Amino acid sequence: MDADPPLQLRVFNLNCWAIRYLSKLRQERIGLIGDTLGQEGFDLALLQEVWSERDYCELKQKLTACYPYSHYFKSGVIGSGLCVFSRYPILDTFLYQYSLNGYPYMLQHGDWFCGKAVGLLIIKICGIIFHVYVTHLHAEYCRDKDAYLPHRVVQAWELAQFIQHTSKGADVVLLGGDLNMHPGDVGIRLLRGWTGLRDSFADTERFEGCEDGCTLVPANCFINKEELQPFPLGIRIDYVLYKGLSRFVVKCDSLVTTTGTAPGKSIPYSDHEAVIATLCVKPREEAKGSSGSAVEPELVDVVNEARTEVRVGLHTAERQRYSNGRMAILALLLLLLQAAMGLSSLVGWDSPQPFPKFSFSLLSLLATVVLLLSMVLYVFHTIEVKMLQGTEEQMRLALQALQDKLSSM
Amino acid sequence: MDADPPLQLRVFNLNCWAIRYLSKLRQERIGLIGDTLGQEGFDLALLQEVWSERDYCELKQKLTACYPYSHYFKSGVIGSGLCVFSRYPILDTFLYQYSLNGYPYMLQHGDWFCGKAVGLLIIKICGIIFHVYVTHLHAEYCRDKDAYLPHRVVQAWELAQFIQHTSKGADVVLLGGDLNMHPGDVGIRLLRGWTGLRDSFADTERFEGCEDGCTLVPANCFINKEELQPFPLGIRIDYVLYKGLSRFVVKCDSLVTTTGTAPGKSIPYSDHEAVIATLCVKPREEAKGSSGSAVEPELVDVVNEARTEVRVGLHTAERQRYSNGRMAILALLLLLLQAAMGLSSLVGWDSPQPFPKFSFSLLSLLATVVLLLSMVLYVFHTIEVKMLQGTEEQMRLALQALQDKLSSM
Repeated sequence: MDADPPLQLRVFNLNCWAIRYLSKLRQERIGLIGDTLGQEGFDLALLQEVWSERDYCELKQKLTACYPYSHYFKSGVIGSGLCVFSRYPILDTFLYQYSLNGYPYMLQHGDWFCGKAVGLLIIKICGIIFHVYVTHLHAEYCRDKDAYLPHRVVQAWELAQFIQHTSKGADVVLLGGDLNMHPGDVGIRLLRGWTGLRDSFADTERFEGCEDGCTLVPANCFINKEELQPFPLGIRIDYVLYKGLSRFVVKCDSLVTTTGTAPGKSIPYSDHEAVIATLCVKPREEAKGSSGSAVEPELVDVVNEARTEVRVGLHTAERQRYSNGRMAILALLLLLLQAAMGLSSLVGWDSPQPFPKFSFSLLSLLATVVLLLSMVLYVFHTIEVKMLQGTEEQMRLALQALQDKLSSM
Repeated sequence: MDADPPLQLRVFNLNCWAIRYLSKLRQERIGLIGDTLGQEGFDLALLQEVWSERDYCELKQKLTACYPYSHYFKSGVIGSGLCVFSRYPILDTFLYQYSLNGYPYMLQHGDWFCGKAVGLLIIKICGIIFHVYVTHLHAEYCRDKDAYLPHRVVQAWELAQFIQHTSKGADVVLLGGDLNMHPGDVGIRLLRGWTGLRDSFADTERFEGCEDGCTLVPANCFINKEELQPFPLGIRIDYVLYKGLSRFVVKCDSLVTTTGTAPGKSIPYSDHEAVIATLCVKPREEAKGSSGSAVEPELVDVVNEARTEVRVGLHTAERQRYSNGRMAILALLLLLLQAAMGLSSLVGWDSPQPFPKFSFSLLSLLATVVLLLSMVLYVFHTIEVKMLQGTEEQMRLALQALQDKLSSM
């Protein structure tokens, strides 16, 4: 093996922002993405937000010669939006849906309907087993008052755990996606600390693209400049992360991002910038076992910080469950009262109905709708509470194992 | 290693049927289960249907001396019901919720509310890494016309895939649970064929208990005899499955089931019989690699059979989605018509309201409720369709990989 030349792998990652009827210039952009993937001949293209399967099929048809293997992960109401085009055979796939993913009633955000998930593909390239993960976490709509932070932290934790538990048979682990987290955010630190994944931007030998590796930049014409005001350079939320296991080491030779437009074109591929990483996979020279599995003491703090966020989320979820339960009981009482009044006036116990019939019926309509909705929401928030409690407990167990490991070192 | 004596492991598996307010003699039975676990000192106790966390806490408190390590998996509205008591430290846990699990409107069955899942625990015993899986699949309410068969097949497939993808780092894989499938059912054949897990009942050297290893038997006083009429001996739906990986072989030295009552008592532990397996783990003598990973040609037929079931489910789900969509549109049209009539009579275009106001309002109440419910169900069945399509596609890919493997053998 040592005599083999290193394997070079070019990986393209992009959040395509392809929502039918809503995303601007969708068809042109999908065409442009297809053209670029075809011309550039990457080894792997990891795409997010390809919400319409028709767009996926269009890309698949166009790229069949250059990327004979591809996979679209289905989940949620709309589809996960995740798909992968590969030059090498996909041996197996597996999908893990995050247990928490926003709220169905937040229609204007819509993340719940997407069934956010992480997709795993097992790909063999020149005898090396790659576990390729593609994902898209819950969006951040307001950084100062981020109601979805606990859900995103749970997703980051589940992503980290999913990678750890499913990558034991891999030679190389590769994760691409829109993580909706800044590089210093607790979720990213948790993910990187727990899995040992390396950040291609931090580790690359050559970088070309937006300053600080940003992938949401004001230069992009689809970006709402006001939202990026606190970050004049933009933000970095799209990542290519990797690690070599057992017999292999991985390095990032170069990293390129687009800079507001597609190269040589007047429009961008998407509202996100594409990230193109050139990775180099080499057999490990040192003895087996030195794959960097040493535990960093800072990880304890990171897991504790994440656990605190989960606890905050738990507190909110419990409050929401309580108020939905109270609302359901009130609506039920109102309905019962109305039923009693209606019945008593029907059997003639009472003088004629004290309220006009129309308002009376309108009120019962309202009470029924409120009762139904509060019941559904009560169930929903109960599930949320359970999942947050479960995650908190898992993190507690993980912390304990971590501390045992550290004290035995 | 070869000089080490074989490791003997006693595993207790039971579906506890502990539903608060509904299950008969719940408290007595939980007490009895706790006593037995305490007296017998098994190495592992895998329990299902411990729906109430209070029951789990009661058991935990009672068993803390004998089983210092335990875990309860939280999910769904009620909790997954899955918990494990262990004599050995639990290093890590992970939960995978099945993507399909019945219907929320089937309140009388209630499986949807339980968030059926598979829990993974990583346990190290005498230096051997055990991946212990505990699960409970969707119940079968009517064998002749089993509306949940496609969901159960999807669950069996996800269980098999979850085990395959998460067990690469294990020395021994152990699965215990109520699979709600007879030994010859397609889901069991798929699970066993895909993972290579061995059935403790089929492989044991010594068996003692109900004929054919049945775990739902007419002798149990909680069993509805009529439901078991087609199976005079009972049915076997609770399993302990295992396999040794890489350096280890596992054998089942003995298997015992209870026979309608708890030993020496007048009542049973549950409506299911307990399964107690004594496993023997030994270092493998042959060269590494001969861990029985050969592909059986029959597996192709099994995956095809499972895929057909998924397709049947897909057809049904599409039909249900269609009828819910149609119902929602009809309800919306009715509401719009009523709004138009109401408005026109308000602005005085029309002669006085042709319908009595009360019936008019009642009708709009009904239309609103129908609209809301059909919309929710439309969304629900759309998710179901997506997941069935996704599973079908995954099975197609798996079949292809299987056929490639077979043709290269």
